[in-house]
Amino acid sequence: MSVAVVGEFGLIGRVTARLGTGRATLLGPGDDAAVVAAPDTRVVASTDVLVEGRHFRRDWSSAVDVGHRAAAANLADIAAMGATPTALLVALCMPPDLEASWAEELADGLAAEAAKVGASVVGGDMSASPTLTIAVTALGDLEGRAPVVRGGARPGDVIALAGRIGYAAAGYTVLSRGFRTPKMLVEAYRRPEVPYAAGPLAAEGGATAMIDISDGLLADLGHLAAASRVAIDLTGDAFEVPVQMRDAAHALGVDPYAWVLGGGDDHALAAAFPEDTPLPPGWRQIGHVIHGAGVTLDGRPYKGPTGWQHFR
Amino acid sequence: MSVAVVGEFGLIGRVTARLGTGRATLLGPGDDAAVVAAPDTRVVASTDVLVEGRHFRRDWSSAVDVGHRAAAANLADIAAMGATPTALLVALCMPPDLEASWAEELADGLAAEAAKVGASVVGGDMSASPTLTIAVTALGDLEGRAPVVRGGARPGDVIALAGRIGYAAAGYTVLSRGFRTPKMLVEAYRRPEVPYAAGPLAAEGGATAMIDISDGLLADLGHLAAASRVAIDLTGDAFEVPVQMRDAAHALGVDPYAWVLGGGDDHALAAAFPEDTPLPPGWRQIGHVIHGAGVTLDGRPYKGPTGWQHFR
Repeated sequence: MSVAVVGEFGLIGRVTARLGTGRATLLGPGDDAAVVAAPDTRVVASTDVLVEGRHFRRDWSSAVDVGHRAAAANLADIAAMGATPTALLVALCMPPDLEASWAEELADGLAAEAAKVGASVVGGDMSASPTLTIAVTALGDLEGRAPVVRGGARPGDVIALAGRIGYAAAGYTVLSRGFRTPKMLVEAYRRPEVPYAAGPLAAEGGATAMIDISDGLLADLGHLAAASRVAIDLTGDAFEVPVQMRDAAHALGVDPYAWVLGGGDDHALAAAFPEDTPLPPGWRQIGHVIHGAGVTLDGRPYKGPTGWQHFR
Repeated sequence: MSVAVVGEFGLIGRVTARLGTGRATLLGPGDDAAVVAAPDTRVVASTDVLVEGRHFRRDWSSAVDVGHRAAAANLADIAAMGATPTALLVALCMPPDLEASWAEELADGLAAEAAKVGASVVGGDMSASPTLTIAVTALGDLEGRAPVVRGGARPGDVIALAGRIGYAAAGYTVLSRGFRTPKMLVEAYRRPEVPYAAGPLAAEGGATAMIDISDGLLADLGHLAAASRVAIDLTGDAFEVPVQMRDAAHALGVDPYAWVLGGGDDHALAAAFPEDTPLPPGWRQIGHVIHGAGVTLDGRPYKGPTGWQHFR
């Protein structure tokens, strides 16, 4: 049954019944606005939008997958500030002939990903649109910590990484060539495994700067370096290519480091720590901060493909 | 110059330069997430999306107008909870050939509307899309008040209204028939005048239930009545049709009460107050709460057109 047949209020009822209730929800969906606990007296907020054909394809990802990914992209931004996510709001624009079950399964994915961090979908909006579009806003609580911004890295700091990189980009390439395996890579694209807990741990552990890797490691570290007015030199030996990725790269004729250094969508976290600070659990060193500008690999510019721009 | 030529990061820079800084902004655009003050330890949050061709037309409204309206729709939801808006986040999806100046002027409108309540745009996202789409999330602070929900009205309460109704719907009809005047009605559609202060005043004044009128007075009071498990009877004499609206209705062959009772987009606020409570400034009585279900006018069902559903 299409969303046009079910109608706006019918669909809102079906979807909200599936959303669950996070621990910070004081008033959930159904009123003019939601009310979410912000015990810290500050709220962290971020918005990311996914557009069909650009950020996802319905023949590559199930609705549940897209829900996971839409939630993950936003929850990762909250974690990258050192905060714990509390709530999501979702604006969903749908072609009238979309199956209502797609929207319901999207809600299942959003709810399941949010539940990983104790959060839930507290509100949203729906509209008809020729283009299937999912705009998600995530809220989070700093729990008394200072936010970890991009601009605090200092020469001498260690650069560390939490989470996987290159897996989602490899999965994207696999799918775009018409394949469905290796399953590990395809699943990494469909449902990124975000190291949510590593964000607050980094903040507690003294991180001087942090960023979510969404455009690719080199591109996003470039943003961190620019905001901090420093340079970053990465250590090539720190980037091990797992065997499935190496095999897939060989089969597809791709340099796997293009995925590892240039691929986004895994939503790993990168952070700078003072050099004498023990790294928190889940973090591994991948480079260090130096005077200057830009990002290098073993002291040299990386010539391969890096992050991508929209609108091109 | 198109947004494709300016590019994502170029456009983000151009737009964020125009946004201003609200009093609750602790960390504005440019990092993974914004940080907004929530001194009450609760944050109110709401999301509304505008889709070109469905919620606005570029030949009917300037980019500045659309910015005003997108912000107003969301800020009104915050006010309808009895809260004061603090921040907006905006997900903007644009066709690559959109003029970059359109996005910049949209930002001007969003910023100007938010500034009316001391708020500002603190973050967002941009993507290419075939469909121009603006998803806005508003945050607000309750300043120690209890949120005023839809479900608290009790038989015996007075129903009161703050703000204008029917003006935006009349302006929409005028534009849809190819006219550009009366200017008062067309401008009401392009930039609704939302009684933001009336929301917190109602909460302080003892309102038992409140709602933002976005689908039309009868439809939205129907939501309030259903949530409160009561009926609402409106007093016909309370709805005066201004002369410009009466003249336009006559010229267009429309019943002006269809605009007044069925038209949305003015973002007036409706609330229930205990009958012995003096109404706060800006509020006027339009009916009362009785036992039963549904909304009537002078004791009888209204047979004219009411609010509209999406997806149809």
